[in-house]
Amino acid sequence: MVMADGRPAPQQDAVSFDLNAYLKERKQLVEAALDCALPVSEPLTIYESMRYSLLAGGKRLRPILCLATCELLGGTSELAMPTACGLEMVHTMSLIHDDLPSMDNDDYRRGKLTNHKIYGDDIAILAGDGLLAYAFEHIVEETRGVPPERILRVIARLGRAASAAGLVGGQVVDLACEGDPNVTVETLNFIHTHKTGALLESSVTCGATLAGASEADLACLTRYAQRVGLAFQIVDDILDITSTREELGKTAGKDLRADKATYPSLWGLEASRERARDLSEAAIEDLAAFGERALPLQGIARAIVTRRN
Amino acid sequence: MVMADGRPAPQQDAVSFDLNAYLKERKQLVEAALDCALPVSEPLTIYESMRYSLLAGGKRLRPILCLATCELLGGTSELAMPTACGLEMVHTMSLIHDDLPSMDNDDYRRGKLTNHKIYGDDIAILAGDGLLAYAFEHIVEETRGVPPERILRVIARLGRAASAAGLVGGQVVDLACEGDPNVTVETLNFIHTHKTGALLESSVTCGATLAGASEADLACLTRYAQRVGLAFQIVDDILDITSTREELGKTAGKDLRADKATYPSLWGLEASRERARDLSEAAIEDLAAFGERALPLQGIARAIVTRRN
Repeated sequence: MVMADGRPAPQQDAVSFDLNAYLKERKQLVEAALDCALPVSEPLTIYESMRYSLLAGGKRLRPILCLATCELLGGTSELAMPTACGLEMVHTMSLIHDDLPSMDNDDYRRGKLTNHKIYGDDIAILAGDGLLAYAFEHIVEETRGVPPERILRVIARLGRAASAAGLVGGQVVDLACEGDPNVTVETLNFIHTHKTGALLESSVTCGATLAGASEADLACLTRYAQRVGLAFQIVDDILDITSTREELGKTAGKDLRADKATYPSLWGLEASRERARDLSEAAIEDLAAFGERALPLQGIARAIVTRRN
Repeated sequence: MVMADGRPAPQQDAVSFDLNAYLKERKQLVEAALDCALPVSEPLTIYESMRYSLLAGGKRLRPILCLATCELLGGTSELAMPTACGLEMVHTMSLIHDDLPSMDNDDYRRGKLTNHKIYGDDIAILAGDGLLAYAFEHIVEETRGVPPERILRVIARLGRAASAAGLVGGQVVDLACEGDPNVTVETLNFIHTHKTGALLESSVTCGATLAGASEADLACLTRYAQRVGLAFQIVDDILDITSTREELGKTAGKDLRADKATYPSLWGLEASRERARDLSEAAIEDLAAFGERALPLQGIARAIVTRRN
């Protein structure tokens, strides 16, 4: 089997760690927690709409990064779970809003019709708003056994990642650059460090904060998260070109049709693959000092460049 | 001069308290704080769009309620100001999104073109998202001299007020009821206790929480806020019928044209005015135990039913 990075499927890690089993188990844990976090209530339409997108599957990468980082530093997955769910709520909000006709106008997401195609634009906007606001309430109400100062740091990090200094700012520049043939790699980096990078980074740093990370640990984990975030986006761009809609679960070939600047359009496919691999390897190196406890995060850095959707 | 409640302009309060001067001074204080809270940054468009709506004037009722409640209980306006600004950011988000073509489709707000008429639907949606997320970050980063547990309570209250359990839920039912001739007063109450009431209530309870309110104070202030919130909405409905666009700063007569259920359409104008007056008087009574320190909040309860926009 050939993966997105053009290499054969990876070998099992030297140390016995089954990443696929780990990711599968974590995904199930996260999805059960998300289901409990947002029970149906009145008015039904809005809760159904929020749940439709929140429980539509996906890799659950952000919550898993949060849990794994908290555990790496000696915390438990229980104390990080409300924050992990909050991160996924914010991510889901951004997907619902980005898919709207006045934004990227997408009909499919995770293999299903997008939220506004089912519920209409008005409810889709409100579902996003509701998920964003609820993420903060949920984290505060459900986090147990963590000093309040740390929870406040998590709130500030998540708020910043979701704001104009984070994913909103990235989406604005992304929209402004559509059809512009002169987008530079600096602008593309700005878009992705904000649109995807900020929330991925805060997934790691929030997990670290909950566990009481030292400044040194935080700096090292931040570097890891930034490299993983950029690698993730480069691979996203590659997959948009090389995959079908069935494989992606969302519209494929969209960047090319929209005449959108991407890493492959600036660097070519092969150089993009190489850059993603380099970033992944550097991210794995960032965590060398943590020893075997870093295997999940290192495995994720590896899996991000070998993923097929 | 005849006011919205059909009575002559009110006399100065028996105790010497100049409410108009108080509101004017507070409004200036809040607007200066809002201006500082959200400086222009890159990408310019989104910050300009957020600032366009955030600094577009308005009564600043929510921030003033927050400051006044905190001071009533012995806190300072300084320690409540970041929360006051956060409340206005959330309120502004809800106005920007409610005005969108796929929602209430309004062209004017506070006497100016609505956000999407200037910046487009995409930026208007993102400006709302950005304001909502930033509200939480701003409160955490800027609040000084308050125990972290209290700030966490504020975050949870604000998150809930902005979510599907609060203003998002109210807007959903409001949209669903448009053109429905059989809306009951129970449904109308649901809409307004959620769409307007939740954030007004949290303005008061957040101010109280920051000052370290007792359970008894909180219960009493919550009753006050609920009555003021409902009175506010009844007067809003009355003004939509009796005022011009110039007076309101937003489209007038809209409820009638949209065939929307309102308190005047269910009860008639005169009974609606009476109900608003009764609520205002009961709200003033709620605060009797606080003595003179309650004059600002009592004045606000009075002003809400005598306002003209």
